[in-house]
Amino acid sequence: MSVIYDRVALLGLGLIAGSMALAMREKGLAGRIVGHARSAETRQTALEIGLVDEVFDTAAEAVKGADLVVFCVPVGVMGQLAAEVAPHLETGATVSDVGSVKGAVIKAIAPHIPEGVHFIPGHPLAGTEHSGPRAGFASLFHNRWCLLTPLEGTDPKALDRLRQLWTEMGANVDEMDAAHHDLVLAVTSHAPHLIAYTMVGVADDLKRVTEREVINYSAAGFRDFTRIAASDPTMWRDVFLNNKEATLEILGRFTEELFDLQRAIRRGDGQQLFDYFTRTRAIRRGIIEAGQDTDAPDFGRVGKD
Amino acid sequence: MSVIYDRVALLGLGLIAGSMALAMREKGLAGRIVGHARSAETRQTALEIGLVDEVFDTAAEAVKGADLVVFCVPVGVMGQLAAEVAPHLETGATVSDVGSVKGAVIKAIAPHIPEGVHFIPGHPLAGTEHSGPRAGFASLFHNRWCLLTPLEGTDPKALDRLRQLWTEMGANVDEMDAAHHDLVLAVTSHAPHLIAYTMVGVADDLKRVTEREVINYSAAGFRDFTRIAASDPTMWRDVFLNNKEATLEILGRFTEELFDLQRAIRRGDGQQLFDYFTRTRAIRRGIIEAGQDTDAPDFGRVGKD
Repeated sequence: MSVIYDRVALLGLGLIAGSMALAMREKGLAGRIVGHARSAETRQTALEIGLVDEVFDTAAEAVKGADLVVFCVPVGVMGQLAAEVAPHLETGATVSDVGSVKGAVIKAIAPHIPEGVHFIPGHPLAGTEHSGPRAGFASLFHNRWCLLTPLEGTDPKALDRLRQLWTEMGANVDEMDAAHHDLVLAVTSHAPHLIAYTMVGVADDLKRVTEREVINYSAAGFRDFTRIAASDPTMWRDVFLNNKEATLEILGRFTEELFDLQRAIRRGDGQQLFDYFTRTRAIRRGIIEAGQDTDAPDFGRVGKD
Repeated sequence: MSVIYDRVALLGLGLIAGSMALAMREKGLAGRIVGHARSAETRQTALEIGLVDEVFDTAAEAVKGADLVVFCVPVGVMGQLAAEVAPHLETGATVSDVGSVKGAVIKAIAPHIPEGVHFIPGHPLAGTEHSGPRAGFASLFHNRWCLLTPLEGTDPKALDRLRQLWTEMGANVDEMDAAHHDLVLAVTSHAPHLIAYTMVGVADDLKRVTEREVINYSAAGFRDFTRIAASDPTMWRDVFLNNKEATLEILGRFTEELFDLQRAIRRGDGQQLFDYFTRTRAIRRGIIEAGQDTDAPDFGRVGKD
């Protein structure tokens, strides 16, 4: 493998930045990796565990001389960060991000990007329920998708270089426009997250069922919701506030459909339920065939005491 | 280990019956295991792969001489099965079941149980998204809960014996009344399943997002819903039809809460979202501490290509 970027600056040093740093190191894709995080403790940790070669107290210092700058912060603070680093970006550098929404991020960042700097928004569809610099690992992006949403007139060479970085880190890369990205993610991620958060909140609220019962008997289905609902609260608050329209549209469809199934239960319409449940099995099969999940029962966690 | 029942008859030979058979064999808990399934193919498979020592074409023949009879069929056919086998049950035998709802099952089975036969309803909270006789494995119940909902006046010795069987198969056993069981399961299992089915159905329906996109980009959250939504359609149809009231009550609470969060998104109330998402993390922690899930990121499926 050869170096793709000479100096990579990671702004924000959590799960995604940490995993990028480890993946780039493993394959020697970056000459030098530097970083910045708002919290001094996070900066210290990132340095200690070897995620980055150097940390800076300010984002402005961190981006100096970098040919790749990646914004790995919650979507809500990207605009402010862009304003702060803009005067310090190198001509010819690429600025990218890993935010879960793209329309709002483009609106927040693009106006600050100086002439001669390439801004290529990105979103790796990878993550776990853990957060912080210690949560990162080199294989996080293996066989996961990274979606790039380049603006019109993006320099093809700069785009190819960023694609190559993600490919070398193990990801499959796809391109689409930002609005479509935000709709697709509302379906595959944002609505499911809000739904999982809600169900876990309802269980927590219900006084006639004790917390011990909810916890002990979670393996019957609820458990998979709690993993999703344990994701980083700041990140997810920002996702919903910044992908408002698409998320609300999908949630509207969802409640419409849920009411229809509730009515089927109330009326005792077993055929409608059976047909619905049969249809959804095919999607699961497709996900396994596409290598986006394992076919092991219960993801292989069964039988492990 | 010693034999707890001399002759166990399993009625229905799917995932749960298959796992019970293998778990009982592994520890020598049953003298002889016999079975019946409606489908000749299932009977043949169960015999071939050694789940049972003998299969019978009718349930009535299968229960003859058994000191334990376990109903492992969908909830909707339990009553009919009880009527069929009742005249052939041995005095002193125990009849149990593994149905996911208990109130309706008791109503369906109890009236048929002859004097001198012990009926002890049960529900092991274990399963995978796979079904059929080949889906079973001996460790399915390890560290999972099995809930027994004994009726008033149940013989303590018969109850202890059944508890012992589940304990030896690796389960933790708890007792509660049937109505409470059905409410607890509506929260931890039935409502989450209907919600997951609904979300997968919505994704499948949405013409502006292609099925390829839904499948490829599922790792962002949606994927965990599809596992749940791949569960056996017949079983789940029967669950909803037979735990109607509790499920509809919880779904009512859920939609109320979901509307509240939708309003917070629409109004841009980040604080409400943040507080809500923070609260749900604690439940996840409790589930891991209770040994009902692993703390490995993404259940350990990350990094496996």
